[in-house]
Amino acid sequence: MRILGVDPALTRTGYGVVDFKKNKLSFLEAGVVTTSSRQAIAERLDKIHAAVMRLASRTKPDVIVIEKLFAHYRHPTTAYLLGQARGVICLVCAEKNIPLIEYAATRVKKAVVGRGLGSKLQVQRMVANILNLNKLPKYTDVTDALALAITHSYDVGLRERKLNFNQKVY
Amino acid sequence: MRILGVDPALTRTGYGVVDFKKNKLSFLEAGVVTTSSRQAIAERLDKIHAAVMRLASRTKPDVIVIEKLFAHYRHPTTAYLLGQARGVICLVCAEKNIPLIEYAATRVKKAVVGRGLGSKLQVQRMVANILNLNKLPKYTDVTDALALAITHSYDVGLRERKLNFNQKVY
Repeated sequence: MRILGVDPALTRTGYGVVDFKKNKLSFLEAGVVTTSSRQAIAERLDKIHAAVMRLASRTKPDVIVIEKLFAHYRHPTTAYLLGQARGVICLVCAEKNIPLIEYAATRVKKAVVGRGLGSKLQVQRMVANILNLNKLPKYTDVTDALALAITHSYDVGLRERKLNFNQKVY
Repeated sequence: MRILGVDPALTRTGYGVVDFKKNKLSFLEAGVVTTSSRQAIAERLDKIHAAVMRLASRTKPDVIVIEKLFAHYRHPTTAYLLGQARGVICLVCAEKNIPLIEYAATRVKKAVVGRGLGSKLQVQRMVANILNLNKLPKYTDVTDALALAITHSYDVGLRERKLNFNQKVY
Protein backbone atom coordinates (compact mmCIF):
# COMPACT_ATOMS: atom_id res chain seq x y z
CA MET A 1 0.00 0.00 0.00
CA ARG A 2 1.29 3.41 -0.95
CA ILE A 3 0.41 6.25 1.42
CA LEU A 4 0.61 9.98 0.67
CA GLY A 5 0.60 12.24 3.71
CA VAL A 6 -0.12 15.93 3.12
CA ASP A 7 0.14 18.89 5.51
CA PRO A 8 -1.68 21.65 3.62
CA ALA A 9 -0.91 25.34 4.12
CA LEU A 10 -0.90 28.33 1.81
CA THR A 11 2.75 29.27 2.19
CA ARG A 12 4.23 25.79 2.45
CA THR A 13 2.41 22.52 1.93
CA GLY A 14 4.42 19.50 3.05
CA TYR A 15 3.99 16.06 1.54
CA GLY A 16 5.53 12.63 2.01
CA VAL A 17 5.07 9.29 0.28
CA VAL A 18 5.76 5.96 1.97
CA ASP A 19 5.27 2.35 0.96
CA PHE A 20 3.88 -0.17 3.41
CA LYS A 21 4.36 -3.73 2.25
CA LYS A 22 4.52 -6.94 4.26
CA ASN A 23 4.51 -4.95 7.47
CA LYS A 24 7.60 -2.99 6.33
CA LEU A 25 7.65 0.76 5.93
CA SER A 26 9.85 2.41 3.33
CA PHE A 27 10.38 6.03 2.42
CA LEU A 28 9.70 7.00 -1.18
CA GLU A 29 9.84 10.77 -1.46
CA ALA A 30 8.90 13.98 0.30
CA GLY A 31 8.95 17.69 -0.32
CA VAL A 32 7.11 20.97 -0.14
CA VAL A 33 4.95 23.09 -2.44
CA THR A 34 5.53 26.76 -1.70
CA THR A 35 3.58 29.82 -2.79
CA SER A 36 4.27 33.48 -2.11
CA SER A 37 1.92 35.87 -0.32
CA ARG A 38 2.57 38.24 -3.22
CA GLN A 39 0.60 35.88 -5.48
CA ALA A 40 -3.18 36.12 -5.71
CA ILE A 41 -5.09 33.61 -3.60
CA ALA A 42 -6.56 31.86 -6.66
CA GLU A 43 -3.08 31.46 -8.14
CA ARG A 44 -1.68 30.07 -4.88
CA LEU A 45 -4.45 27.51 -4.49
CA ASP A 46 -4.13 26.54 -8.14
CA LYS A 47 -0.39 25.91 -7.70
CA ILE A 48 -0.97 23.71 -4.64
CA HIS A 49 -3.82 21.84 -6.34
CA ALA A 50 -1.85 21.28 -9.56
CA ALA A 51 1.28 20.14 -7.70
CA VAL A 52 -0.59 17.59 -5.58
CA MET A 53 -2.55 16.42 -8.66
CA ARG A 54 0.74 15.78 -10.49
CA LEU A 55 2.23 14.10 -7.41
CA ALA A 56 -0.83 11.81 -7.15
CA SER A 57 -0.66 10.98 -10.88
CA ARG A 58 3.04 10.16 -10.64
CA THR A 59 3.19 8.23 -7.35
CA LYS A 60 -0.33 6.70 -7.49
CA PRO A 61 -1.06 6.56 -3.75
CA ASP A 62 -3.76 4.19 -2.45
CA VAL A 63 -4.80 6.72 0.19
CA ILE A 64 -4.17 10.35 1.03
CA VAL A 65 -3.84 11.21 4.72
CA ILE A 66 -4.37 14.68 6.19
CA GLU A 67 -4.79 16.06 9.67
CA LYS A 68 -8.28 16.00 11.08
CA LEU A 69 -10.00 19.35 11.20
CA PHE A 70 -9.39 20.73 14.67
CA ALA A 71 -10.03 24.16 16.09
CA HIS A 72 -6.57 24.71 17.54
CA TYR A 73 -6.06 27.92 15.63
CA ARG A 74 -6.44 31.01 17.73
CA HIS A 75 -7.32 33.25 14.83
CA PRO A 76 -10.31 32.47 12.63
CA THR A 77 -8.50 34.13 9.72
CA THR A 78 -5.66 31.61 9.98
CA ALA A 79 -8.21 28.82 10.09
CA TYR A 80 -9.99 30.30 7.06
CA LEU A 81 -6.76 30.58 5.07
CA LEU A 82 -5.68 27.07 6.02
CA GLY A 83 -9.13 25.75 5.20
CA GLN A 84 -8.74 26.96 1.62
CA ALA A 85 -5.53 24.96 1.18
CA ARG A 86 -7.13 21.94 2.80
CA GLY A 87 -10.10 22.26 0.47
CA VAL A 88 -8.06 21.87 -2.68
CA ILE A 89 -6.31 18.77 -1.24
CA CYS A 90 -9.70 17.21 -0.50
CA LEU A 91 -10.62 18.01 -4.08
CA VAL A 92 -7.60 16.06 -5.39
CA CYS A 93 -8.93 13.01 -3.53
CA ALA A 94 -12.34 13.36 -5.14
CA GLU A 95 -10.95 14.05 -8.62
CA LYS A 96 -8.45 11.19 -8.48
CA ASN A 97 -10.86 8.91 -6.64
CA ILE A 98 -8.38 8.27 -3.82
CA PRO A 99 -9.79 7.66 -0.32
CA LEU A 100 -9.12 10.48 2.15
CA ILE A 101 -8.11 9.50 5.67
CA GLU A 102 -7.96 11.96 8.56
CA TYR A 103 -6.14 11.67 11.90
CA ALA A 104 -6.19 14.08 14.81
CA ALA A 105 -2.83 15.76 15.52
CA THR A 106 -2.66 14.15 18.97
CA ARG A 107 -3.24 10.72 17.44
CA VAL A 108 -0.36 11.25 15.02
CA LYS A 109 1.99 12.36 17.78
CA LYS A 110 0.98 9.38 19.89
CA ALA A 111 1.69 7.02 17.00
CA VAL A 112 5.06 8.53 16.13
CA VAL A 113 6.45 9.91 19.40
CA GLY A 114 4.53 7.69 21.81
CA ARG A 115 2.52 10.42 23.48
CA GLY A 116 -0.05 12.96 22.35
CA LEU A 117 1.92 16.08 23.16
CA GLY A 118 5.33 15.56 21.55
CA SER A 119 7.23 18.59 20.26
CA LYS A 120 7.81 19.36 16.59
CA LEU A 121 11.48 18.36 16.99
CA GLN A 122 10.57 15.03 18.58
CA VAL A 123 8.23 14.28 15.68
CA GLN A 124 10.97 15.25 13.24
CA ARG A 125 13.55 12.97 14.87
CA MET A 126 11.20 10.02 15.23
CA VAL A 127 10.05 10.28 11.61
CA ALA A 128 13.68 10.34 10.42
CA ASN A 129 14.40 7.37 12.67
CA ILE A 130 11.37 5.27 11.66
CA LEU A 131 12.05 5.83 7.94
CA ASN A 132 15.85 5.55 8.20
CA LEU A 133 16.42 9.00 6.72
CA ASN A 134 20.06 10.14 6.58
CA LYS A 135 19.23 13.57 7.91
CA LEU A 136 16.34 15.49 9.42
CA PRO A 137 14.08 17.00 6.74
CA LYS A 138 14.50 20.78 6.67
CA TYR A 139 10.85 21.63 7.18
CA THR A 140 8.52 20.34 9.87
CA ASP A 141 5.79 20.50 7.22
CA VAL A 142 7.52 17.54 5.57
CA THR A 143 7.93 15.52 8.76
CA ASP A 144 4.32 16.30 9.73
CA ALA A 145 3.17 14.93 6.38
CA LEU A 146 5.36 11.83 6.76
CA ALA A 147 4.11 11.37 10.33
CA LEU A 148 0.54 11.27 8.98
CA ALA A 149 1.53 8.59 6.47
CA ILE A 150 3.33 6.56 9.17
CA THR A 151 0.29 6.76 11.47
CA HIS A 152 -1.88 5.31 8.76
CA SER A 153 0.58 2.48 8.07
CA TYR A 154 0.46 1.56 11.80
CA ASP A 155 -3.31 1.50 11.60
CA VAL A 156 -3.29 -0.74 8.56
CA GLY A 157 -0.65 -2.98 10.13
CA LEU A 158 -2.74 -3.32 13.26
CA ARG A 159 -5.82 -4.22 11.25
CA GLU A 160 -3.88 -6.83 9.30
CA ARG A 161 -2.45 -8.41 12.43
CA LYS A 162 -5.91 -8.54 14.00
CA LEU A 163 -7.17 -10.24 10.88
CA ASN A 164 -4.40 -12.86 11.02
CA PHE A 165 -5.13 -13.46 14.69
CA ASN A 166 -8.80 -13.95 14.03
CA GLN A 167 -8.09 -16.32 11.17
CA LYS A 168 -5.92 -18.47 13.44
CA VAL A 169 -8.49 -18.64 16.20
CA TYR A 170 -11.56 -19.46 14.16
CA MET B 1 -19.89 42.66 -18.61
CA ARG B 2 -21.19 39.50 -17.02
CA ILE B 3 -20.70 39.13 -13.26
CA LEU B 4 -20.98 35.94 -11.23
CA GLY B 5 -21.35 36.43 -7.48
CA VAL B 6 -20.74 33.42 -5.25
CA ASP B 7 -21.37 32.97 -1.53
CA PRO B 8 -19.49 29.74 -0.77
CA ALA B 9 -20.46 27.41 2.08
CA LEU B 10 -20.36 23.66 2.53
CA THR B 11 -24.07 23.09 3.07
CA ARG B 12 -25.44 25.71 0.69
CA THR B 13 -23.43 27.77 -1.78
CA GLY B 14 -25.40 30.63 -3.30
CA TYR B 15 -24.68 32.05 -6.73
CA GLY B 16 -26.11 34.76 -8.93
CA VAL B 17 -25.33 35.97 -12.44
CA VAL B 18 -26.08 39.52 -13.63
CA ASP B 19 -25.32 41.42 -16.81
CA PHE B 20 -24.09 44.98 -16.68
CA LYS B 21 -24.31 46.72 -20.05
CA LYS B 22 -24.54 50.43 -20.84
CA ASN B 23 -24.93 51.20 -17.17
CA LYS B 24 -27.94 48.88 -16.96
CA LEU B 25 -28.12 45.90 -14.62
CA SER B 26 -30.12 42.82 -15.55
CA PHE B 27 -30.70 39.57 -13.73
CA LEU B 28 -29.70 36.40 -15.54
CA GLU B 29 -29.96 33.51 -13.14
CA ALA B 30 -29.33 32.48 -9.55
CA GLY B 31 -29.47 29.38 -7.41
CA VAL B 32 -27.81 27.23 -4.81
CA VAL B 33 -25.52 24.20 -4.73
CA THR B 34 -26.33 22.06 -1.73
CA THR B 35 -24.41 19.19 -0.16
CA SER B 36 -25.31 17.02 2.79
CA SER B 37 -23.26 16.66 5.96
CA ARG B 38 -23.72 12.92 5.50
CA GLN B 39 -21.42 13.11 2.47
CA ALA B 40 -17.63 12.92 2.85
CA ILE B 41 -15.86 16.28 2.80
CA ALA B 42 -14.00 15.47 -0.44
CA GLU B 43 -17.29 14.57 -2.12
CA ARG B 44 -18.96 17.78 -0.92
CA LEU B 45 -16.15 20.02 -2.16
CA ASP B 46 -16.05 18.15 -5.44
CA LYS B 47 -19.77 18.75 -5.94
CA ILE B 48 -19.41 22.49 -5.25
CA HIS B 49 -16.34 22.77 -7.48
CA ALA B 50 -17.92 20.83 -10.35
CA ALA B 51 -21.19 22.80 -10.15
CA VAL B 52 -19.44 26.20 -10.24
CA MET B 53 -17.13 24.98 -13.03
CA ARG B 54 -20.19 24.00 -15.10
CA LEU B 55 -21.90 27.30 -14.25
CA ALA B 56 -18.82 29.25 -15.35
CA SER B 57 -18.57 27.24 -18.59
CA ARG B 58 -22.22 27.84 -19.36
CA THR B 59 -22.63 31.49 -18.40
CA LYS B 60 -19.05 32.65 -19.21
CA PRO B 61 -18.71 35.40 -16.56
CA ASP B 62 -16.05 38.10 -17.02
CA VAL B 63 -15.41 38.17 -13.27
CA ILE B 64 -16.26 36.13 -10.21
CA VAL B 65 -17.01 38.07 -7.03
CA ILE B 66 -16.78 36.63 -3.52
CA GLU B 67 -16.80 38.07 -0.02
CA LYS B 68 -13.45 39.25 1.28
CA LEU B 69 -11.92 37.02 3.88
CA PHE B 70 -12.90 38.42 7.24
CA ALA B 71 -12.58 36.96 10.70
CA HIS B 72 -16.18 37.44 11.75
CA TYR B 73 -16.67 33.81 12.58
CA ARG B 74 -16.60 33.09 16.26
CA HIS B 75 -15.54 29.50 15.86
CA PRO B 76 -12.30 28.65 14.06
CA THR B 77 -13.88 25.35 12.98
CA THR B 78 -16.61 27.20 11.12
CA ALA B 79 -13.98 29.39 9.50
CA TYR B 80 -11.96 26.31 8.56
CA LEU B 81 -14.97 24.58 7.01
CA LEU B 82 -16.00 27.71 5.11
CA GLY B 83 -12.43 28.23 3.97
CA GLN B 84 -12.49 24.86 2.25
CA ALA B 85 -15.54 25.83 0.21
CA ARG B 86 -14.00 29.21 -0.58
CA GLY B 87 -10.81 27.48 -1.71
CA VAL B 88 -12.51 25.48 -4.42
CA ILE B 89 -14.27 28.62 -5.74
CA CYS B 90 -10.88 30.40 -5.96
CA LEU B 91 -9.64 27.37 -7.85
CA VAL B 92 -12.42 27.72 -10.45
CA CYS B 93 -11.17 31.27 -11.12
CA ALA B 94 -7.62 30.03 -11.67
CA GLU B 95 -8.68 27.05 -13.79
CA LYS B 96 -11.06 29.11 -15.94
CA ASN B 97 -8.76 32.12 -15.98
CA ILE B 98 -11.49 34.42 -14.66
CA PRO B 99 -10.43 37.37 -12.45
CA LEU B 100 -11.47 37.03 -8.82
CA ILE B 101 -12.80 40.14 -7.09
CA GLU B 102 -13.35 40.40 -3.35
CA TYR B 103 -15.50 42.85 -1.38
CA ALA B 104 -15.86 43.14 2.38
CA ALA B 105 -19.34 42.29 3.69
CA THR B 106 -19.80 45.86 5.01
CA ARG B 107 -18.92 47.27 1.58
CA VAL B 108 -21.55 45.06 -0.05
CA LYS B 109 -24.23 46.10 2.43
CA LYS B 110 -23.32 49.73 1.98
CA ALA B 111 -23.63 49.39 -1.79
CA VAL B 112 -26.93 47.54 -1.71
CA VAL B 113 -28.73 48.80 1.43
CA GLY B 114 -26.97 52.15 1.81
CA ARG B 115 -25.29 51.45 5.12
CA GLY B 116 -22.72 48.93 6.32
CA LEU B 117 -24.88 47.17 8.87
CA GLY B 118 -28.07 46.25 7.01
CA SER B 119 -29.96 43.11 8.01
CA LYS B 120 -30.18 40.00 5.86
CA LEU B 121 -33.81 40.81 5.09
CA GLN B 122 -32.95 44.34 3.97
CA VAL B 123 -30.28 42.97 1.64
CA GLN B 124 -32.80 40.45 0.31
CA ARG B 125 -35.44 43.12 -0.39
CA MET B 126 -33.02 45.59 -1.94
CA VAL B 127 -31.52 42.93 -4.21
CA ALA B 128 -34.99 41.90 -5.39
CA ASN B 129 -35.82 45.57 -5.92
CA ILE B 130 -32.63 46.48 -7.80
CA LEU B 131 -32.93 43.48 -10.11
CA ASN B 132 -36.73 43.69 -10.51
CA LEU B 133 -37.28 40.17 -9.23
CA ASN B 134 -40.93 39.08 -8.92
CA LYS B 135 -40.39 37.59 -5.49
CA LEU B 136 -37.74 37.40 -2.79
CA PRO B 137 -35.30 34.57 -3.42
CA LYS B 138 -35.86 31.78 -0.89
CA TYR B 139 -32.32 31.69 0.46
CA THR B 140 -30.24 34.60 1.71
CA ASP B 141 -27.25 32.75 0.23
CA VAL B 142 -28.67 33.63 -3.19
CA THR B 143 -29.32 37.29 -2.37
CA ASP B 144 -25.87 37.58 -0.77
CA ALA B 145 -24.32 36.26 -3.98
CA LEU B 146 -26.41 38.65 -6.09
CA ALA B 147 -25.51 41.55 -3.74
CA LEU B 148 -21.82 40.82 -4.41
CA ALA B 149 -22.43 40.94 -8.17
CA ILE B 150 -24.42 44.20 -7.84
CA THR B 151 -21.64 45.79 -5.76
CA HIS B 152 -19.13 45.04 -8.49
CA SER B 153 -21.41 46.48 -11.19
CA TYR B 154 -21.63 49.73 -9.17
CA ASP B 155 -17.86 49.80 -8.95
CA VAL B 156 -17.45 49.28 -12.68
CA GLY B 157 -20.15 51.88 -13.40
CA LEU B 158 -18.37 54.39 -11.20
CA ARG B 159 -15.04 53.77 -12.90
CA GLU B 160 -16.65 54.18 -16.32
CA ARG B 161 -18.32 57.45 -15.35
CA LYS B 162 -15.04 58.75 -13.96
CA LEU B 163 -13.34 57.80 -17.19
CA ASN B 164 -15.94 59.71 -19.24
CA PHE B 165 -15.56 62.72 -16.99
CA ASN B 166 -11.79 62.71 -17.34
CA GLN B 167 -12.05 62.36 -21.10
CA LYS B 168 -14.27 65.43 -21.22
CA VAL B 169 -11.94 67.55 -19.10
CA TYR B 170 -8.67 66.80 -20.79
